[in-house]
Amino acid sequence: MNQPKALDLEFLFHPQSIAVVGVSTQQDKAAGGRWLLNSLLTIKYPGRLYPVGSEAGEYAGLKIYSSLRDIPDRLDHIIVAIPAAATLQLARDAAAKGAKSMHLFTAGFSELGGEAEVRMEKELVEFMRANGMRLLGPNCMGIYRPASRMAFLENISPTPGNFGLLSQSGGNGMKAISLGPRRGLFFSKAVSYGNAADINEIDLLEYFADDPETKVIGVYIEGTRDGRRFAAALQKAAQKPLIVYKGGKTEVGRNATLSHTGSLAGAGPVWSGLIKQAGGIEVNDMDEMIDLALLFTHRVPSQRMNTAIIGLGGGAGVLMADTWGRAGLNVPLFSPEVRGRLQQIYGSEAGRSFRNPIDVVPFDRRNILNQTLEAITGGSEIDCVLLHLALVFAPETIREFIRNHMATLVELPQSVRRRILVLLHEIVTEDDRHLATEVEESCHRAGIPIFYSASGTALALTRYLQYHQNHKSGDCR
Amino acid sequence: MNQPKALDLEFLFHPQSIAVVGVSTQQDKAAGGRWLLNSLLTIKYPGRLYPVGSEAGEYAGLKIYSSLRDIPDRLDHIIVAIPAAATLQLARDAAAKGAKSMHLFTAGFSELGGEAEVRMEKELVEFMRANGMRLLGPNCMGIYRPASRMAFLENISPTPGNFGLLSQSGGNGMKAISLGPRRGLFFSKAVSYGNAADINEIDLLEYFADDPETKVIGVYIEGTRDGRRFAAALQKAAQKPLIVYKGGKTEVGRNATLSHTGSLAGAGPVWSGLIKQAGGIEVNDMDEMIDLALLFTHRVPSQRMNTAIIGLGGGAGVLMADTWGRAGLNVPLFSPEVRGRLQQIYGSEAGRSFRNPIDVVPFDRRNILNQTLEAITGGSEIDCVLLHLALVFAPETIREFIRNHMATLVELPQSVRRRILVLLHEIVTEDDRHLATEVEESCHRAGIPIFYSASGTALALTRYLQYHQNHKSGDCR
Repeated sequence: MNQPKALDLEFLFHPQSIAVVGVSTQQDKAAGGRWLLNSLLTIKYPGRLYPVGSEAGEYAGLKIYSSLRDIPDRLDHIIVAIPAAATLQLARDAAAKGAKSMHLFTAGFSELGGEAEVRMEKELVEFMRANGMRLLGPNCMGIYRPASRMAFLENISPTPGNFGLLSQSGGNGMKAISLGPRRGLFFSKAVSYGNAADINEIDLLEYFADDPETKVIGVYIEGTRDGRRFAAALQKAAQKPLIVYKGGKTEVGRNATLSHTGSLAGAGPVWSGLIKQAGGIEVNDMDEMIDLALLFTHRVPSQRMNTAIIGLGGGAGVLMADTWGRAGLNVPLFSPEVRGRLQQIYGSEAGRSFRNPIDVVPFDRRNILNQTLEAITGGSEIDCVLLHLALVFAPETIREFIRNHMATLVELPQSVRRRILVLLHEIVTEDDRHLATEVEESCHRAGIPIFYSASGTALALTRYLQYHQNHKSGDCR
Repeated sequence: MNQPKALDLEFLFHPQSIAVVGVSTQQDKAAGGRWLLNSLLTIKYPGRLYPVGSEAGEYAGLKIYSSLRDIPDRLDHIIVAIPAAATLQLARDAAAKGAKSMHLFTAGFSELGGEAEVRMEKELVEFMRANGMRLLGPNCMGIYRPASRMAFLENISPTPGNFGLLSQSGGNGMKAISLGPRRGLFFSKAVSYGNAADINEIDLLEYFADDPETKVIGVYIEGTRDGRRFAAALQKAAQKPLIVYKGGKTEVGRNATLSHTGSLAGAGPVWSGLIKQAGGIEVNDMDEMIDLALLFTHRVPSQRMNTAIIGLGGGAGVLMADTWGRAGLNVPLFSPEVRGRLQQIYGSEAGRSFRNPIDVVPFDRRNILNQTLEAITGGSEIDCVLLHLALVFAPETIREFIRNHMATLVELPQSVRRRILVLLHEIVTEDDRHLATEVEESCHRAGIPIFYSASGTALALTRYLQYHQNHKSGDCR
C-alpha cells in the first residue's frame, strides 16, 4: 500500500458536503446517526448536509434520503452509523458520489477479534483505497474542527484554538473536547480514530507535526501496529510540546484495551521509554493532559515556577501551599517591596501579614483583586499566581463579588494575565456550576486558564517546568 | 486549669435555646451572623432561637434583640459574630443568662500573633471558665449535628450518620459537610474549632473516641500545643478508624498555617510518624478523607479488593483498569461461571468477551444492570464493583436509562449493594449536575457511596485494604 504524505490528510477537515448515514427519527432506534447529525447542526456546519436513513421524512428540516445515490449533489465526506455488514455496499455508493472520505462510527470490526470481522474491515479498506477514498475508523467518533464547524458532540465550543488531539478512544476524545474549552483549552482539531484500519496514529502524528494551526499536540493511544514508524512519528511530533496518555499500560489495563479497540497494547515500560526518548511528556489520564496543555497553550512563564497563592479561605490556602510543597514547587515569601504595595492596598488592617499565601479579604472593595494581582506580579519574583475560589460555601454576597471581580480581569495588562491560573473548586450544586460557567467565560475573555484540582495543577506545573529545563529554552514567551 | 472529662462536651450538641449575636438585616453589613442564623433556620433547628443585633426589627419572622439581657428566656448556647473587642462584655451577658457555651465565629484573636490579641483571648477564656462556660473557637464555624438540626452552612443535609469530624479550619469543615452527604457520607457531628483557645483538639479527639454515635473519625489539624497529650488522644481515637489530614506539613504550608490559625505546625515527618504510630491513616486533602471515610462507613468488603469494573465507554474502562493497575489493585478476569451467567444475560451478541472491565451495553434493557451486578457478585471472586458513569456526553436516551437503572439499585440484595461503588465523572454542565444529584439520591436510598475521581477511589481502596491487613480483622462486616 502506498503511504500518502502527511499533509494529504488536510482535505479531511474541509468537506463542502457531508452525508450522515443511519439517521432514524424514532427515539427508540439506534442514536448514533442522530447524535452525529445533531453535532453538526448545533455547531452550525456551514456546508451542505444530507441525512440518510431507511425512514422517509425530514430531520430538523432536512430531507432524509433513503440512499446516498439519491442525493442530487457531490458528497465529500460520509459519516456512517449503520451496521458493519452494510458498509461495503455503502462504500460503493460513496465512490459513485465522488466521496473522498468516510468516517465509520460503526463498530463490530477488527476490535471484536473474530476472523470474519477482521476480513470485513480489510476488504472495506482495500475497496476504498482502490477507489481513491480514505477511511477514518471504524469504531470512532471522527472529527472536531471548530474552524470548519465540524463536531462529534452536541453544543460544543465553536472557538478555534491551537491544541490538536488524536485519540484512539471516542470517550476520551469527547471528554477532551467537552471539558477542554470550558477550561480555556481550545482546539485546532481533534480526531477520534478508533481501530485505525486506514488512517492511523502515525499518519495523524505526522499530520499534526506539520499542521501550522496546531501548536501543542495531545495523544491518547492504546496501541500501534508499527513501533518503528510510530517512534519516528512521535519524535517528529515532539518538535512541538507533545503530551501522551498511553491507555493499557498496566496488565489489567491491557486486558481492557483488547476488548476495546483490539490493540496489542505492549508493555508499559517500553511505552514510557519510547515517549520519553522522543521528547514527549507522558501523563496518566485526560485531566492531566488538559492541565498540562493549558500551561503550554497559554504560554505561562516557565522559569522557576515561583507561585503566589491567593484566594478565599485560610484552610484552602494551607492546602494549596502543602500541595505545592509536596510537588517541590516554590511559594516564596513576598519581598518587602511586594509587602509594601499590599500594605498600601489593604491599609493598616490589624495583623495582616502578607505572607504567601494570602486570603483575599476584603473581597468586596472595588478593584481590590486586580490591584492585588498587579502588586504581586509587579516585580520578577513571581512567575505565576494561583487564584483559588471555592464556590460551594460562598454566600450570595461573595458570589456577587466573585462575578464582578472576574469580569474585570480582562482589564489587567497581558503581562499580568498570563501569569494567572484560576482554580475553581468545590463546584457542588447546580448554582455553583452556573457561577463556574460565568467565571469561566470571564476568564476566556481575559485569556486565563481554569483548573479544577490543586494537585493536578501542581503536577502540571512540575512537568511544565521540567520540560522547559530539558529544552533549555527558558521562558517560552 | 482543671481538665473536664471527655464526654463532658456532650452538652454542646443539645442546646435547647440558641442566641445568634451579630445579625444585621442590611445586606452590605457583615454577613457572618446572618449566615449562621440562616444555617440554623434552613436545617430547621427545633429549639428556641434568638437573633441579636444593633438594628431593631425582625429577621425571618424572629424579633431581633439589642442585647442578650433583653431575651426573656434562659440561653444554652451563644453564637457570636461581632468584633473581637466586644466579646468579653458579651460573655458577661451570656453568664447572666445562664449560658453553658459560646461559639466565636469572630476572628481577630491569637491567630493574628499580636500580644494584645493573645491577651484578649486568654482573658475571655478565663472569664468563661470561671463562670462555668466553655468556649468553642474563636475563629471557627462551630457545630454541625444533623440529629440536633445544628449547622454552619445553609441548606445542609439533615440526615444523621456515623462519621465524626473535627476540623481546625472552617473552610475544610464546610467542604466536608457540604460535599460528604452528597456522596453518601453522613455525619454524627462535625466541629470546626479554630484557635482552640478553650475546647481543643485533644478534648474533641477524646470526645469522639467515646462518642457512641461516631464510628469513623476524621481530623483536619494544623497544630497542637501539647504533643504528648495529643499523641495519647490520637491513640485512643484510633480504636475507631481514624483519618487525619495534617495541614502545613511542608515548609510552604507551614508559612500558611501561621497566618491562618496561629498554630506552630511542626515538622512534617514528625507528624506522619505520630499519626502512623497511633494507628491513624494519614491523607493529603479533604477529598482523600471523604473517599476513605466512605469505604469505612459503608463497610465495603475489605479482603482482597478484587474489583470488577463496569460502566459506560471502553476508553473509560481502560483508564479505570490502568488506574487500578498502577495502584496495585486487582481487576481479575471473570471465572467461567461468571462469564456463563453474563452470556445468559446478554445472549449471543457477537464478540462480547466478558472480560473485566465490561462496557454495560445494551444499557437499555430492563433490569440488565441489576442482573449484571448480581451475576458478577454471585460468587466470592469479586470484593467490589466500580460502576462508572461519565455524564457529560450521555445523550438524553442514555440519561434516561441511567436514571431508571440507578433507581432500581435499591432492589438488589444488601450483599450485592455493599459491594458497589458508583463513580460519577465528567460532571460538566448544569444538566450533568442535575442528573448527578438524581443518581446520588438513588444511591443514598440503596446505601451505595459515590466517588468523583478514579484515582482517588483507587488510592482510598489501597489505604482501606492496608488498614485491614494491619488490623488483621479481615472483612469488616
